[in-house]
Amino acid sequence: MPETDAVTMEKIVALAKRRGFVFPSSEIYGGLGSTYDYGHYGVLLKNNVKDAWWKSMLQERDDIVALDSAILQHPKVWEASGHLAGFTDPLVDCRTCKTRFRADHLAEGKADLVCPKKPSKLAGQGPECDLTEAREFNLMFETTVGPVKDSGSVAYLRPETAQGIFINFKNVLQFSRKKPPFGIAQVGKSFRNEITPGNFIFRTREFEQMEMEFFVPPADAPQWYEYWKQARFDWYTGLGIRPDHLMLREHESDELSHYSSGTADVEYLFPIGWSELEGIANRGNFDLSAHAEHSGEKLEYFDQGSGERYVPHVIEPAAGADRATLAFLVDAYDEEEIEGEQRTVLRLHPRLAPVKVAVLPLVKKDGQPEVAKEIVGMLRGRMQVEYDEGGSIGKRYRRQDEIGTPWGVTVDHQTLEDRTVTVRDRDSLAQERVAIDDLPALLSEKLAADWQTPKLH
Amino acid sequence: MPETDAVTMEKIVALAKRRGFVFPSSEIYGGLGSTYDYGHYGVLLKNNVKDAWWKSMLQERDDIVALDSAILQHPKVWEASGHLAGFTDPLVDCRTCKTRFRADHLAEGKADLVCPKKPSKLAGQGPECDLTEAREFNLMFETTVGPVKDSGSVAYLRPETAQGIFINFKNVLQFSRKKPPFGIAQVGKSFRNEITPGNFIFRTREFEQMEMEFFVPPADAPQWYEYWKQARFDWYTGLGIRPDHLMLREHESDELSHYSSGTADVEYLFPIGWSELEGIANRGNFDLSAHAEHSGEKLEYFDQGSGERYVPHVIEPAAGADRATLAFLVDAYDEEEIEGEQRTVLRLHPRLAPVKVAVLPLVKKDGQPEVAKEIVGMLRGRMQVEYDEGGSIGKRYRRQDEIGTPWGVTVDHQTLEDRTVTVRDRDSLAQERVAIDDLPALLSEKLAADWQTPKLH
Repeated sequence: MPETDAVTMEKIVALAKRRGFVFPSSEIYGGLGSTYDYGHYGVLLKNNVKDAWWKSMLQERDDIVALDSAILQHPKVWEASGHLAGFTDPLVDCRTCKTRFRADHLAEGKADLVCPKKPSKLAGQGPECDLTEAREFNLMFETTVGPVKDSGSVAYLRPETAQGIFINFKNVLQFSRKKPPFGIAQVGKSFRNEITPGNFIFRTREFEQMEMEFFVPPADAPQWYEYWKQARFDWYTGLGIRPDHLMLREHESDELSHYSSGTADVEYLFPIGWSELEGIANRGNFDLSAHAEHSGEKLEYFDQGSGERYVPHVIEPAAGADRATLAFLVDAYDEEEIEGEQRTVLRLHPRLAPVKVAVLPLVKKDGQPEVAKEIVGMLRGRMQVEYDEGGSIGKRYRRQDEIGTPWGVTVDHQTLEDRTVTVRDRDSLAQERVAIDDLPALLSEKLAADWQTPKLH
Repeated sequence: MPETDAVTMEKIVALAKRRGFVFPSSEIYGGLGSTYDYGHYGVLLKNNVKDAWWKSMLQERDDIVALDSAILQHPKVWEASGHLAGFTDPLVDCRTCKTRFRADHLAEGKADLVCPKKPSKLAGQGPECDLTEAREFNLMFETTVGPVKDSGSVAYLRPETAQGIFINFKNVLQFSRKKPPFGIAQVGKSFRNEITPGNFIFRTREFEQMEMEFFVPPADAPQWYEYWKQARFDWYTGLGIRPDHLMLREHESDELSHYSSGTADVEYLFPIGWSELEGIANRGNFDLSAHAEHSGEKLEYFDQGSGERYVPHVIEPAAGADRATLAFLVDAYDEEEIEGEQRTVLRLHPRLAPVKVAVLPLVKKDGQPEVAKEIVGMLRGRMQVEYDEGGSIGKRYRRQDEIGTPWGVTVDHQTLEDRTVTVRDRDSLAQERVAIDDLPALLSEKLAADWQTPKLH
């Protein structure tokens, strides 16, 4: 790819704002650092990402069940999980300039805060800097539940959805009639009071996760770990991410949590460099054992066949819905010259495209808008359709290209004679002429062709 | 309906737990008052409710766009909206028994807290009660953002999604090319630190809303108010709620907010009595004007055609996703005797049913499970399918009835001879015999038959 065509974060942010995918949050009040609101196409895109994840976990297999646990959980959950004691960043203050930053960033020479006293230099790095000792700062947001503010009413916004799954292990075991290997999947918001959020929707304090905990007999954990690494890698490429923009990076032993016998990141080549999209971890029996110890409940599985009783091991693929959405946007982004004109096009997989088909009358007269609206009525309820009659046809195609609409249906003068329309393909630009009455079936088929139907697991 | 068949909240709660629709949250740690986790079928059901709402707002019309704003917003949002000053409940303490409760409940004789000193009497209502003056308690959850705890870092968990819409009005106007009348729709979690949550998922501190703000020229507000009241009533009945269990209750003038010229509740006949499912309010220009004043931004519409400049009026249908889910559960719940056997059946609309079709081999041998799994593979990706081979066929039908599965496909000995199966209807219990190869089309058609395709708005 020539240098000038490089996808930069600036281009993505600009497109996201210009076309209403993502806005900075609370903008009329000056914004709230690193918080974003999803606009129309952003909601449709992200909903499609989450829907594709759910489908891959639920519809396309039968060993996983769904869960949606509360954001506000009992504080003991975070005591057991280790978050209360250990989910911290070391913070250092400069007594001279009053800046606060992460001690680990300073040690790595990464401190990117500008000194307010001397804007030309980095905070914490000059001889006049007077640093405090590092103190641990917990990344969980704290609040109080109920009308009485005391230690008994403290609650935390969950920093991950996973713990809500572990504390429901017994409920699911009891009411779903599942037995290991089986998984529990969840999509939902989590919150981390990051010191240095940034890079658009890559790292934000409020974010959405797609996590699944897969419970297996201990001896089978290594092979399921390999299985899920591959399955999750394939999910991204199956939805159109270029394989050479994606890699599985196995953690070095010194990166591993003390309880993990293996963790790998699915990394994507973002404009900011290779960065984590999703982590797949072999967590052993750490979480169930910790909650069993703190709650006094037995969180184990009794196999009536073999008479064996054991604490299942857990393989966890934990993905970020916002990061995935960003990766799909970046990977789909393209600029090219066609017919002597520059166009920006999002080559999104049709499953992910916010709008599946645009219906456009060539001119805003001669009965063409009426026929176009009739076609919109035929497609409604089957797929997300957009009607557009404003501006030249070229301009309208460009608008649809920019939001990744795979197909454009154009009503022209011939339509009024023989009830046929053209269907334009976003990527090949090929146009085929089809009968209006065949459109719903044709477009449904094109969409369905992209929906694989995997075998029963 | 005979008295003995009455649907009680106890029956709904029991079914919800037994079949994994909804569990009390953080149960292994003794629970966290009035917080719930959705299990497998609950997630599928609630996702279908939200999906039906989105479809009615987005796919089936083209005057509404989607938004997903952040839960943590700039504190000025709540200053402008009036929540910081006015979103309060009056609280009273009893100095004798230390109970705290709502002064308005006391005034209405509704105080339902038991006195810890004398469990036989209601708190705050005896001569020995020593009550404090009422103090205003704000219902917003408070937290701090960033590593420094000071007044500048205070943030609130949003108590409603609506304000996130108003503060994005200008963004949407600018980037969506919409003009009044148009709407902005949003689904998401909100949080209210209720003093007295209760009645299962009817009133919880963490809940999910489905809100839409419809911006109209001021003169058209009354007619759009009438339009949305009817449209929202029809949405519930269109999804199977019995019309005699639903009513529109217009607020009396003394119930109205000072800025509202009309508010109506869609009320449902819950087991706890007629209660609010959704509110439809004519909010005038209150919200946009308040945010314009506090932010200094012009939040108005300039009509290039007429040269007119105005602040649009707003009609707001605000529904609760959890309440709607509860109402659909309650309304679908039925008990009856068939073939000398008692069954519990959820007569859910097929669009809402968590599982669309169950595939059951009559016996777990003779090659029947293999054919059943082949059928599951054919239906995968098209709809949520469940395979069940455990227990007698009657028992398996009962299990599917209880979660509201509309169709059961049974593989029997004849299937192995002529590749036909029976399709059982949940409600009529009628069984028809069809060829396996016709199943995907037949079931897709049955499902599609329930999806109306309204005309272009």
